Amino acid sequence: MQIEIFTTGGTIDKIYFDAKSDYEIGEPQIIELLRDANLTITYQVTSLLRKDSLELTDDDRQMIRSAVERSAAQNIVITHGTDTMIKTGRALQGVAGKTIVLTGAMQPARFRFTDAIYNVASAITAAQTLPAGIYIAMNGQIFDPQHACKNVELNRFETI
Amino acid sequence: MQIEIFTTGGTIDKIYFDAKSDYEIGEPQIIELLRDANLTITYQVTSLLRKDSLELTDDDRQMIRSAVERSAAQNIVITHGTDTMIKTGRALQGVAGKTIVLTGAMQPARFRFTDAIYNVASAITAAQTLPAGIYIAMNGQIFDPQHACKNVELNRFETI
Amino acid sequence: MQIEIFTTGGTIDKIYFDAKSDYEIGEPQIIELLRDANLTITYQVTSLLRKDSLELTDDDRQMIRSAVERSAAQNIVITHGTDTMIKTGRALQGVAGKTIVLTGAMQPARFRFTDAIYNVASAITAAQTLPAGIYIAMNGQIFDPQHACKNVELNRFETI
Amino acid sequence: MQIEIFTTGGTIDKIYFDAKSDYEIGEPQIIELLRDANLTITYQVTSLLRKDSLELTDDDRQMIRSAVERSAAQNIVITHGTDTMIKTGRALQGVAGKTIVLTGAMQPARFRFTDAIYNVASAITAAQTLPAGIYIAMNGQIFDPQHACKNVELNRFETI
Repeated sequence: MQIEIFTTGGTIDKIYFDAKSDYEIGEPQIIELLRDANLTITYQVTSLLRKDSLELTDDDRQMIRSAVERSAAQNIVITHGTDTMIKTGRALQGVAGKTIVLTGAMQPARFRFTDAIYNVASAITAAQTLPAGIYIAMNGQIFDPQHACKNVELNRFETI
Repeated sequence: MQIEIFTTGGTIDKIYFDAKSDYEIGEPQIIELLRDANLTITYQVTSLLRKDSLELTDDDRQMIRSAVERSAAQNIVITHGTDTMIKTGRALQGVAGKTIVLTGAMQPARFRFTDAIYNVASAITAAQTLPAGIYIAMNGQIFDPQHACKNVELNRFETI
Repeated sequence: MQIEIFTTGGTIDKIYFDAKSDYEIGEPQIIELLRDANLTITYQVTSLLRKDSLELTDDDRQMIRSAVERSAAQNIVITHGTDTMIKTGRALQGVAGKTIVLTGAMQPARFRFTDAIYNVASAITAAQTLPAGIYIAMNGQIFDPQHACKNVELNRFETI
Repeated sequence: MQIEIFTTGGTIDKIYFDAKSDYEIGEPQIIELLRDANLTITYQVTSLLRKDSLELTDDDRQMIRSAVERSAAQNIVITHGTDTMIKTGRALQGVAGKTIVLTGAMQPARFRFTDAIYNVASAITAAQTLPAGIYIAMNGQIFDPQHACKNVELNRFETI
């Protein structure tokens, strides 16, 4: 396996339930997203959590970190809600010898117009091309979680 | 103008706001839906309300009825939330000389996979082909609101 | 079964083969189109031909007519290339007791932006709501094949 | 400007003309693809050619090379037909100080299901993260054009 993909929930996985007039975080959408991409790399998708990232606890982050550490892969992508993606990125600092890229989406992957596919492709590519470390792939850029923030008002990630 | 289209909100118009981590009813999606259809009929879209249909009041229904009655068109389509579409259909009984078809969607029109386009096309076609009366176009069928219900569990409209 | 659907090819079913740097008429796309529509009507899809409609012969049209006559259904939809859809419609004149609606698309159903879904929904609805006869559902209108033509320059159907 | 994007045609830009019952290479599709991605990087799209890559001549390749050399950008993406993408990649060898990534698609960008978005995102990311050199981004992998071929039968790029 060349890429380990962990999913934790977030907007990217939000689906809509008419019965509840509400959306919920559903199955990881990344499997379907990657189906059209004609990939010849091998990858494995594991759903760790299905949470809005505002609801992630320190225990959740510790669990994500353990999963990353235990993974046999050197190249790891984590899909995550955008609100606390940076916090989780920082919680992974110190994991050695692996290229870890977090990404997510501002519009659910199920939408006809969404940033999900771009972001996932960017994260998988960055996981293959960058040296070991922790990164965030959003808005067409690669960020260091120690020097990034989400600008909630403008709905985008920025360097600090 | 051949078709008058009134929009009232509902799932069909739900868009997603990442900033709020929530769906809301947005601009009428029907305009964008019809853009790809190469229509040569003339139509006009008027947004009457932007509500989840569970929140529609008797005053709202009276307002919808007035808009229908005042319209110069004989063929009228109303997009509407599914939960109380039948109730609004019944509240239109007695409007004479017009073919009025209500429709909506179980999945927002913005989704990559949605019933919105089918339902809108079905409603516009029914408004052109059926005699004067009040109808509901959902699930590929044309219902009489006096003899229909929404089966919430199975998430579909049925004849009663 | 409430709707019998016959497919004959045409743009609606065109897919792309990279290996040949060319497109070809593929499997009927209508099955996939209808999957998202939450239909509760019963229907059956039968592929009669996979041809560009310019290549249809008199024998092909006779075969289509026979299939329509033999069908147990009263409501029949035929997907067809647009170039000779009217000719096939005229070749069906005289079939009694059935509502037959031909439709197709100007842009392949596989496209992100296509008139295919609208047209298919319109045709199925017209097949349910119109009296026995032969019709064409294109550009949001219902045409009588005896009084319609395709305006090739403007890429649309018109009444004559 | 952070990314210079040159387009040369190929399957990625193929659109469909009903009037001709044929596909042709149209406007660069990458502009529309990137619209949904919420990019905050700056980029510029220039259409150099609109050709099937089997029709590219040595003069065309010289012209592409000149455009790359004259560009003020260090990070360059070229969209290209897949059949001779490797040949063009090799024709760029020796251009110094720039990270140049070629990409394309097996299914047109206009399709509902296409590898175009993944490939473009992968190429833009690789152009930002890899050292100076010439690369090909296809099938989720980054190839060196000196050690890659297109396996026409299996419709994918491979390392040689």
